[in-house]
Amino acid sequence: MVQFDSAVVASQWSSMEVIMCMLSSGRCTRAHLYLLLLIIIALGFHTVEGIWPLPQTVTTSPERYPLNSQAFYFGYGRQSAAKPGCSVLDAAFKRYFFLIFQDYTSGNVPLRFNQNKPFTVEVSVDHDDCESYPNEDSSERYNLSVSAGKASLNAGTVWGAVRGLESFSQLVYQDEYGSYFVNKTEIDDFPRFKFRGILLDTSRHYLPVTAILKTLDAMAYSKFNVFHWHIVDDPSFPYQSSTFPDLSSKGAFHPMTHIYTQSDVRRVISHARLWGIRVIPEFDSPGHTQSWGKGQPDLLTPCYRGSTPSGTFGPVNPVLPSTYQFMTKLFKEVSSVFPDSYIHLGGDEVGFSCWKSNPDVRAFMQKMGFGGNFPKLEAFYMESIVNITSALNKTSIVWQDVFDYHEKIPKDTVLHIWKGTGYKAELSRITKAGMRVVLAAPWYINHIAYGQDWHNSYTVQPLNFSGTDEQKKLVIGGEVAMWGEYVDATNLHPRLWPRASAGAERLWSDEQQTSSVDKAFPRLQDFRCLLVRRGIRAEPLFVGHCKHEYQGI
Amino acid sequence: MVQFDSAVVASQWSSMEVIMCMLSSGRCTRAHLYLLLLIIIALGFHTVEGIWPLPQTVTTSPERYPLNSQAFYFGYGRQSAAKPGCSVLDAAFKRYFFLIFQDYTSGNVPLRFNQNKPFTVEVSVDHDDCESYPNEDSSERYNLSVSAGKASLNAGTVWGAVRGLESFSQLVYQDEYGSYFVNKTEIDDFPRFKFRGILLDTSRHYLPVTAILKTLDAMAYSKFNVFHWHIVDDPSFPYQSSTFPDLSSKGAFHPMTHIYTQSDVRRVISHARLWGIRVIPEFDSPGHTQSWGKGQPDLLTPCYRGSTPSGTFGPVNPVLPSTYQFMTKLFKEVSSVFPDSYIHLGGDEVGFSCWKSNPDVRAFMQKMGFGGNFPKLEAFYMESIVNITSALNKTSIVWQDVFDYHEKIPKDTVLHIWKGTGYKAELSRITKAGMRVVLAAPWYINHIAYGQDWHNSYTVQPLNFSGTDEQKKLVIGGEVAMWGEYVDATNLHPRLWPRASAGAERLWSDEQQTSSVDKAFPRLQDFRCLLVRRGIRAEPLFVGHCKHEYQGI
Repeated sequence: MVQFDSAVVASQWSSMEVIMCMLSSGRCTRAHLYLLLLIIIALGFHTVEGIWPLPQTVTTSPERYPLNSQAFYFGYGRQSAAKPGCSVLDAAFKRYFFLIFQDYTSGNVPLRFNQNKPFTVEVSVDHDDCESYPNEDSSERYNLSVSAGKASLNAGTVWGAVRGLESFSQLVYQDEYGSYFVNKTEIDDFPRFKFRGILLDTSRHYLPVTAILKTLDAMAYSKFNVFHWHIVDDPSFPYQSSTFPDLSSKGAFHPMTHIYTQSDVRRVISHARLWGIRVIPEFDSPGHTQSWGKGQPDLLTPCYRGSTPSGTFGPVNPVLPSTYQFMTKLFKEVSSVFPDSYIHLGGDEVGFSCWKSNPDVRAFMQKMGFGGNFPKLEAFYMESIVNITSALNKTSIVWQDVFDYHEKIPKDTVLHIWKGTGYKAELSRITKAGMRVVLAAPWYINHIAYGQDWHNSYTVQPLNFSGTDEQKKLVIGGEVAMWGEYVDATNLHPRLWPRASAGAERLWSDEQQTSSVDKAFPRLQDFRCLLVRRGIRAEPLFVGHCKHEYQGI
Repeated sequence: MVQFDSAVVASQWSSMEVIMCMLSSGRCTRAHLYLLLLIIIALGFHTVEGIWPLPQTVTTSPERYPLNSQAFYFGYGRQSAAKPGCSVLDAAFKRYFFLIFQDYTSGNVPLRFNQNKPFTVEVSVDHDDCESYPNEDSSERYNLSVSAGKASLNAGTVWGAVRGLESFSQLVYQDEYGSYFVNKTEIDDFPRFKFRGILLDTSRHYLPVTAILKTLDAMAYSKFNVFHWHIVDDPSFPYQSSTFPDLSSKGAFHPMTHIYTQSDVRRVISHARLWGIRVIPEFDSPGHTQSWGKGQPDLLTPCYRGSTPSGTFGPVNPVLPSTYQFMTKLFKEVSSVFPDSYIHLGGDEVGFSCWKSNPDVRAFMQKMGFGGNFPKLEAFYMESIVNITSALNKTSIVWQDVFDYHEKIPKDTVLHIWKGTGYKAELSRITKAGMRVVLAAPWYINHIAYGQDWHNSYTVQPLNFSGTDEQKKLVIGGEVAMWGEYVDATNLHPRLWPRASAGAERLWSDEQQTSSVDKAFPRLQDFRCLLVRRGIRAEPLFVGHCKHEYQGI
């Protein structure tokens, strides 16, 4: 019954190799030394390598300082633009105190270091963006310097400071006596990509708000910064619109228990903000809209069998002025409810058979001179929707399909690549046209496989496509997608974590330093135990244990 | 992103077909009518088809009776051998009251039927086996008759009564006003196989006792009756032996936090007993024993490189008398701690390379006249272990390997079939030799795949192998195995449920009545929602929702 496991076997083999290289005359390569480091980690020595995702540059030393929860403080630097009262940092200080001193609430303060040596984490940021929302231009760079009795954390923005606090929290460890320590450390860190997203699908299954908030917490632990909320789709419409309440009262799985009220949405957005996470809603059309039709008569295209309506409906009806009036009102509301400058308009997988069957649509095609070219009709529709949201000063993200059939869309539109086959060619094609892209295709982690399938997310090389440096710059990031066909609150977290964290390191860290799954394995195992310790139901990578196992049921 | 789903597509197609058969002249086949029934279920009408696993015979009627938690009683029939004070039934009555009236604790008693119409479930059993343990001969047959104001539940044993109470609890439903109802119903039910097990592996990952108890609850909801506790293996030895405490203090992942104390084990056994579940421990040897070696010097075979010990160890050392003295003491303890008459001795996947390398083993082979035939040595070892447990009046279960290399083992030994390839030929071979078998091979549900992989467990045909009726009778049951390489408390329940329930119906119900996954789909969806309502993190089968979603995080 024992499973063959490449990572484990490889690192065992490597260990032997390293020991031999040490016993031998001594020509140890850099790889050998790195492997030695790995073994040290495996042996439980604490090194800054424990930070996940791996920071850009790190220097650490064995010199360690005890931390005592009775004499541990977060504070603002004298030069900091953000002062006490800064909502983002005040909240972060409190959260991270409890994340660092996990057993604090249980009251058993380690006695060994009770001679109150104070330790202060002094945070300084250049801009007072405490009450703002993170956006596409927010810098997340930070510098962290840990020395005797003090850690200095400097960042341009509070969002960078939040990332730095996460790294600091991961530097703290406990010895066998439960005493807390942090080692002398220097970190200069920044993300490789500025868009690092997670998609949740709340239409195929409804996710209680608590499950979403918990996901946001775990996202911050892996330094994700975008929550792509695929909030509605064919199966259900849980978003409770103030303008069109029928959409959820008739289109949700249940009009009261399976909806997101305006206050639910505000709660998600404000929780995300405190973690430096953007919330980008997707209202996918003209396809994937079956649930919209229940609460909005005449929105969907009536399909015909011969000369008579069949009683079924297709995509949004692109020929009626009422359609665009409805969309204008809906997106006006959505734009004000969701503060982010991005909005996702979908545009994927539109089937033409129903449009083709409908005489009014065919007549419209003739009038517009589209002939039989239905992609032209689809392009006409998407162009209209993009224009509606542009008028609302929103940047549109659309699925790659929109580019595939129609290359003339506003230059600032972001293309979202989801098709697994040939996504590298697509990256070349779209960036060559000067458009920005977000890559999701290789990170559809709703697809599961037996064994260590986190390797698939980890070994992605997002910029390994043929194109100029200018083209590569147009890849603004990536997204880990958890589609909801087989996922709800019962299994969401174990399927997301730590598998999504593998993608998180690919999107944050330097690819050269993080190219090996064997090197990542023990680090990800440690990080997974940290997630479990923080109450996230992160599933195991392989045989083993955590000091603190998940105790829930 | 929409997934193609055969079950859903099929049942949609079927619905249309049925409607057409009703509109048409009317030659509706039996299949059509069954499909009509399916549609009715899908529409939410309550029928006894809702019971999972499907009872052997059921007659139900639309006549329904309201149930009021204020006037609902479980009681003992006048003729019942079991009387008030019967531990199994007293406990079951209390459990099922709360399982039936789910919102009782939350206090919102439906008002609509408050004119206290009393309803009594009267239970009668032929034997007062209230304080005993379920065993391989325990009858689980029951007869349930629900009429106005009363349900009569008759069974030979309390274990049959517990199965009947589960079925009754699944008959109860709530209308839109929250009022409880049960329909007039007649059920005569019994299991197809008497051994219906679940294997949990607590060595590759440690499972907290709470996770095991929760598993036992969910097992009872699916009418499983054997908990095969694969308690120790190579990675760790969590069983705290009173005779050999070093086995866990040195062989467990942690000597205090990752062990099962004697009281933990008693807790598991007594919890299982109240559900009519047998607990069969497995102490697998001579292979899969690396963790045993840490606390028991000289137990494992020292491997040699050339003429010197390599420092690594292989399987249990079969040539030392001390080995058999140790095993005799260990199994004496285990036999008294675990009351079941069965004990699992493992015997799978023994590698010979280490034995071959060891000069003492080779010398022993010569002395015994085994020559170079190591299966003979393995047979010698297993025979000795089986004799030890036979002397303790235990029936041995061993993995199929033991039969494969050695056909002369006590006739009452049960062979456990686990190898996926050619398991039907193995069934023929072993039953032909007159040995009893338990089938696990097609139910290794630790192996996961994307999509509705419960189909694999459901479509198994355990008796579809070439053999006489006598041979088929030797298949005493099956087992769903959840090996622990990738599973711990964080993801155990969503991976087990409802996927294991598919196997449960195959093992309990009539195969002819339950041969179609399309017919099973809506029933299993309902059952999965029932599990979620009862606090089990059972994952969804496909797109959809439950009235009461999982609210935990």
